[in-house]
Amino acid sequence: MAGNRSVVLRGVKNMQVEDLDFPKLQMPNGKKAPHGVVLKIVASNICGSDLHIYRGSFPAPEGMVMGHEMTGEVVEIGSDVEFLKEGDLVSVPFNVACGRCRNCRNGRTEVCQTCNPDADSAAYGFNLGGWDGGQAEYLFVPYADFQLLKFPDRDQAMEKIRDLALLSDILPTAFHGLMEAGAKPGSTVYLAGAGPVGRCGAAAARLLGASCIIVGDHDKDRLALMKRNGCETIDLNEDVPLQDQIEKILGEPMVDCAVDYVGTEAHGIGKDADKEDPAYAINQVIDVTRAGGATGIIGIYGPDPLAESKDEQNGIYPIEFGNAWIKSPKITAGQAPIMHYNYELMQAILWDRMPYLSDMLQTKVISLDDAPQAYADFDNGSQEKYIIDPHGMIAS
Amino acid sequence: MAGNRSVVLRGVKNMQVEDLDFPKLQMPNGKKAPHGVVLKIVASNICGSDLHIYRGSFPAPEGMVMGHEMTGEVVEIGSDVEFLKEGDLVSVPFNVACGRCRNCRNGRTEVCQTCNPDADSAAYGFNLGGWDGGQAEYLFVPYADFQLLKFPDRDQAMEKIRDLALLSDILPTAFHGLMEAGAKPGSTVYLAGAGPVGRCGAAAARLLGASCIIVGDHDKDRLALMKRNGCETIDLNEDVPLQDQIEKILGEPMVDCAVDYVGTEAHGIGKDADKEDPAYAINQVIDVTRAGGATGIIGIYGPDPLAESKDEQNGIYPIEFGNAWIKSPKITAGQAPIMHYNYELMQAILWDRMPYLSDMLQTKVISLDDAPQAYADFDNGSQEKYIIDPHGMIAS
Amino acid sequence: MAGNRSVVLRGVKNMQVEDLDFPKLQMPNGKKAPHGVVLKIVASNICGSDLHIYRGSFPAPEGMVMGHEMTGEVVEIGSDVEFLKEGDLVSVPFNVACGRCRNCRNGRTEVCQTCNPDADSAAYGFNLGGWDGGQAEYLFVPYADFQLLKFPDRDQAMEKIRDLALLSDILPTAFHGLMEAGAKPGSTVYLAGAGPVGRCGAAAARLLGASCIIVGDHDKDRLALMKRNGCETIDLNEDVPLQDQIEKILGEPMVDCAVDYVGTEAHGIGKDADKEDPAYAINQVIDVTRAGGATGIIGIYGPDPLAESKDEQNGIYPIEFGNAWIKSPKITAGQAPIMHYNYELMQAILWDRMPYLSDMLQTKVISLDDAPQAYADFDNGSQEKYIIDPHGMIAS
Amino acid sequence: MAGNRSVVLRGVKNMQVEDLDFPKLQMPNGKKAPHGVVLKIVASNICGSDLHIYRGSFPAPEGMVMGHEMTGEVVEIGSDVEFLKEGDLVSVPFNVACGRCRNCRNGRTEVCQTCNPDADSAAYGFNLGGWDGGQAEYLFVPYADFQLLKFPDRDQAMEKIRDLALLSDILPTAFHGLMEAGAKPGSTVYLAGAGPVGRCGAAAARLLGASCIIVGDHDKDRLALMKRNGCETIDLNEDVPLQDQIEKILGEPMVDCAVDYVGTEAHGIGKDADKEDPAYAINQVIDVTRAGGATGIIGIYGPDPLAESKDEQNGIYPIEFGNAWIKSPKITAGQAPIMHYNYELMQAILWDRMPYLSDMLQTKVISLDDAPQAYADFDNGSQEKYIIDPHGMIAS
Repeated sequence: MAGNRSVVLRGVKNMQVEDLDFPKLQMPNGKKAPHGVVLKIVASNICGSDLHIYRGSFPAPEGMVMGHEMTGEVVEIGSDVEFLKEGDLVSVPFNVACGRCRNCRNGRTEVCQTCNPDADSAAYGFNLGGWDGGQAEYLFVPYADFQLLKFPDRDQAMEKIRDLALLSDILPTAFHGLMEAGAKPGSTVYLAGAGPVGRCGAAAARLLGASCIIVGDHDKDRLALMKRNGCETIDLNEDVPLQDQIEKILGEPMVDCAVDYVGTEAHGIGKDADKEDPAYAINQVIDVTRAGGATGIIGIYGPDPLAESKDEQNGIYPIEFGNAWIKSPKITAGQAPIMHYNYELMQAILWDRMPYLSDMLQTKVISLDDAPQAYADFDNGSQEKYIIDPHGMIAS
Repeated sequence: MAGNRSVVLRGVKNMQVEDLDFPKLQMPNGKKAPHGVVLKIVASNICGSDLHIYRGSFPAPEGMVMGHEMTGEVVEIGSDVEFLKEGDLVSVPFNVACGRCRNCRNGRTEVCQTCNPDADSAAYGFNLGGWDGGQAEYLFVPYADFQLLKFPDRDQAMEKIRDLALLSDILPTAFHGLMEAGAKPGSTVYLAGAGPVGRCGAAAARLLGASCIIVGDHDKDRLALMKRNGCETIDLNEDVPLQDQIEKILGEPMVDCAVDYVGTEAHGIGKDADKEDPAYAINQVIDVTRAGGATGIIGIYGPDPLAESKDEQNGIYPIEFGNAWIKSPKITAGQAPIMHYNYELMQAILWDRMPYLSDMLQTKVISLDDAPQAYADFDNGSQEKYIIDPHGMIAS
Repeated sequence: MAGNRSVVLRGVKNMQVEDLDFPKLQMPNGKKAPHGVVLKIVASNICGSDLHIYRGSFPAPEGMVMGHEMTGEVVEIGSDVEFLKEGDLVSVPFNVACGRCRNCRNGRTEVCQTCNPDADSAAYGFNLGGWDGGQAEYLFVPYADFQLLKFPDRDQAMEKIRDLALLSDILPTAFHGLMEAGAKPGSTVYLAGAGPVGRCGAAAARLLGASCIIVGDHDKDRLALMKRNGCETIDLNEDVPLQDQIEKILGEPMVDCAVDYVGTEAHGIGKDADKEDPAYAINQVIDVTRAGGATGIIGIYGPDPLAESKDEQNGIYPIEFGNAWIKSPKITAGQAPIMHYNYELMQAILWDRMPYLSDMLQTKVISLDDAPQAYADFDNGSQEKYIIDPHGMIAS
Repeated sequence: MAGNRSVVLRGVKNMQVEDLDFPKLQMPNGKKAPHGVVLKIVASNICGSDLHIYRGSFPAPEGMVMGHEMTGEVVEIGSDVEFLKEGDLVSVPFNVACGRCRNCRNGRTEVCQTCNPDADSAAYGFNLGGWDGGQAEYLFVPYADFQLLKFPDRDQAMEKIRDLALLSDILPTAFHGLMEAGAKPGSTVYLAGAGPVGRCGAAAARLLGASCIIVGDHDKDRLALMKRNGCETIDLNEDVPLQDQIEKILGEPMVDCAVDYVGTEAHGIGKDADKEDPAYAINQVIDVTRAGGATGIIGIYGPDPLAESKDEQNGIYPIEFGNAWIKSPKITAGQAPIMHYNYELMQAILWDRMPYLSDMLQTKVISLDDAPQAYADFDNGSQEKYIIDPHGMIAS
């Protein structure tokens, strides 16, 4: 039987490509999984949250296979899989979900209660349930009938694979942030962060018909990329209060909807631009949401055992809730239930409704062996979105 | 004081331009209206529902001033108007609404309980409450602070006035149909009818990110116009069942969302294309809505005193509810609460998110004196959307 | 191996108790079902829709095992069932659903696309997918982890089993009708029909805090039962228009929410009380829904091959849509997705929030052998809700 | 002309009854208000948020008339009031709202943009817009047609006036908290605080059919009152983690919905019961909300200029967001838009659906002269809900 070359976490800033065993149809605890399949990976992206693991700020076990943004081809099928067959091309939602617990039954697959009972939330290639990641040649996926999104036509899908590869995580995740923030056609939105997820947020805001789409970041190249793709931009290095910057663009100091795509590694504005403070982004998006608007928190927050202050270690954040309260804030946070969005977003891509997506994301296809270097480049601020193509299946 | 040249209904297919009195700040029953304003009309469109009146199928009193799609400039202000001033450029929602009854308080201005208690629904230039229409030089608007949508910048608005003029009715109306049908980014939609409202529906579907947008009509020119603007089309003259036509396009025979933009003057499919039957369109859209989808009925239905059959006279329609029931149909009908949508759609226009709108609508600006001829042309199948410009304010 | 004594359809008004084979873990088409379980039936109710089959108005194959409202104990478990074990007491949602198709993933289990692809809707003991019913000693249930609602404590559940037995169909179904009609705390509601489902509707309306709950029926005993349980009642034998009757009670002629719990076997009002007309109930509930309100159609509609008129045979109903249109009607119909409601309704029962349920339903526990007589009594107008207890497990 | 005896703030813990001028139909800035009315106050409750002003923790101008929970009789009417007449008995929503701005048009009257542009939120008898309160004989109310809830029958209303008096604030406010937290029939809920608003929350949870209703407080009498009215209770003096206490009651450690009815004057649990910390309650409710549940923050938060720490002065709260994030928290805070709920809750009271309300609230009717003493008693922990009856109109 074939092996399974994989990107393995070997320490802080240390990723290795290693040859592991071909996956079995079994759960992390060794139990048989007749509901599962094995996929041959066609595309496996490197995500901003992989960087947290790479940098050590998000603890994960040494030896873990990385990767949670996978697209693949079905190559092996469990005895209780009815609606998939070998050769099907599918997108894997990053959240592992059983489809059988109360939360999954309610469509809340991001808080599945059974795939990682410790936290009621499971993901591949994370420290959330012991699931192997998919930056590898092959991947085991449980509950495959429930979880996998099958592309209707293989050839059509391979032609648009760079866009479709975003369906496993960052496009639905970014879209979810906008939904949390109540975005709809005509809404004005502020998006904190122009990394890959934030850029997907801007693309998703265009798709759903937002009117004024304002993106804030410290990186001038990223801002230029957004500017040429129909967004307004705010350079957070400028020492001007965010509400004032928004007022200059919009004529009023706050937006209908604001989304934090940054998380704990946030930096300040203007003279605080070099300061990292885990509550900067969350407070900024709350600050610029109008009374009666809503705020989405897609950036990741958690207890950070490596943080300096005891509060940060315990996941306690100083939130400017006092000024927000009178504005009737609605703040929704957490991971996206990918399955809630991926079918419709796939349709939007297949019917050519996001022609700007490729340019906004700057996807770059690489081999498995290039992955360690891509981690380093991404860590150094590259604005490319890396897609690992372990079998050389994606046309260049 | 100035008079008020107006398009007046003088009988079936008989519109006259007459000089009436300048409007007073008073209600149809003569009561003073300190909450009202008088507008100088900048744009006043001719609507498909005006045609129903023109043709006599929608009874209205002889002598009524026509028009319910108005944009204007505030020229006179009641003593209880606080948030408008002379010179403001505003869009008038076609539904007259008090902002004070239970339905208005709940945002349901299309069923205002006080502006026309006979039907719990009022409109300008209709037989719904005795309100003068605005195909005229001037118009009285009650409850102005509540009702009117002020454009933020007059010059900017005049530049986009052909698009903004659609905000008083057909763009929000068409959008409402899609909302009734549950449309969202990625949805597949079928739109019955490529008249002006149906074309606004197609434009609105693009704005909100629908994936496959299918428009059905009998008019090849209209279909070509839709085709070149990003829609799929179905020629209803072809003698092929509608589900089969959809399956050819979509790969499945039904859509997520279907909207009837036709109403009672519907025609059949294929060999029934010449037959008019008031329930054709409603049954078609129900037929092509998938199990679990939803259907919007924007086309107008009512008792038709001039109809041949007693059932039609009583507003009883033969609806194919038996085949629909097992699909869990959700059918929503009626007028759109314009105020629920017009602000956000204005923003979408002002931020250039609907660049296709002008081409899709084929708006044509005409003078007040040209209005009677425009009615005749529209009745004869012209695909232009006429905008009356009584004061010659719109740049050609 | 044990057999399986079952209530079998042997013709119009002909039910027989017969000894069939013990169920296998396999699908109607003979395919193995590792996701399934076999239940020992604890309670299996006779439903109003069973009467349609009994009377022949809803065609079903001769030899079919009846029953779709089951509560049972798990006695055999497939190899891909993870979250159930022998001895668990569970409620079976009447809709058979895979949990893996697009509709099930969206929580729309009433339109599952795979358990009966002919109609995109499956049920036990109906002509919808070939599933054996559960008026029997034992029942096979597929997709058990997904479908079954487990009661948290067996002893507690057995004490409340008469109420909990309603969770498989009529309580969630009735509740769904109210949700379709937009009911919420303080709503005024009109419920057409005081049969078991209508009575569950009244109980559900009380649970959710409706204010004025009006029940209309022709049966004085049923009305008296509703009256003593906190409802207002309308005797449809009285020759007074329904809006007038409502106005006498409520002070206004229409309600916020109206639900049809009757279906095609509806009768008229007053002098039409003896006339059966399939569109009576649907037109009544639409008529009494206020402008801006909503209407739920829980009563069953379909093409009726035995009907007199060709329209009825084709499922075409004369609906008073013309008068409704101006009221912005929202009409939702079809079966209830039981799983969307049963967990919370179970909690309401277990925490004693529906103390009136037993009296309102008049449940009566019977043996399997008594079932044929119960069908006859129910057909003759008995107001009891029969619960078959095949193993004598329910305390009297 | 009559004067207007009023409860006036004269300093910390210093309320005085003083004789002021009869109200004029004019705005705080002196502008005429043809849309306003003057009410003769029938009932004016003392609210927990009045206590914040009394204690000095919520700054308000010396000389301000207190009171924001008013029920009254219309005695004077502006020239642009159409739907009210002298003698009408009405409930006043505590939020002052124009009905004409973007937020009011969207039903978000709690963030009206015009009645207090400084904060986009206005209230009577608060430091929010300069509006006189209604703990007085008479009160001016602007935008009366829009704002006031008219009771349908005066005599019926006077009989239930103690319950109906809760409609101006705490009953809809408490209900709103539950809606923010996603409560529905069958939900399990945790309510932090058994003061008057928390007790209204418990009553509202019963109305809407919540299953297990758990109330936490430090006061044994309040808890006993809740216990005898159908709630489970948690004594926060016990040194047991809140999740453990909930697990003992519910069998699982978290609830579907949690609401903070406490605000910044919160105390800790067990050995921290004597410690006051402004973030205690908010962190508790977030802690006990299950993954996929939601949290409402009704308790008041703001910058507290008198607080010890600089963070508290700036309204910065240490929120345990890190542990919450993985649970997909949905946190909604702020004031309730009373008008969104008061009509339906009035109907629930008038149709006798909240028979437990009086006992749960322990309302006590007092004279205007007794108000200063009632403030002192309430401050000392009295569990009565005081209703000031300035004209002796309420039967004892």
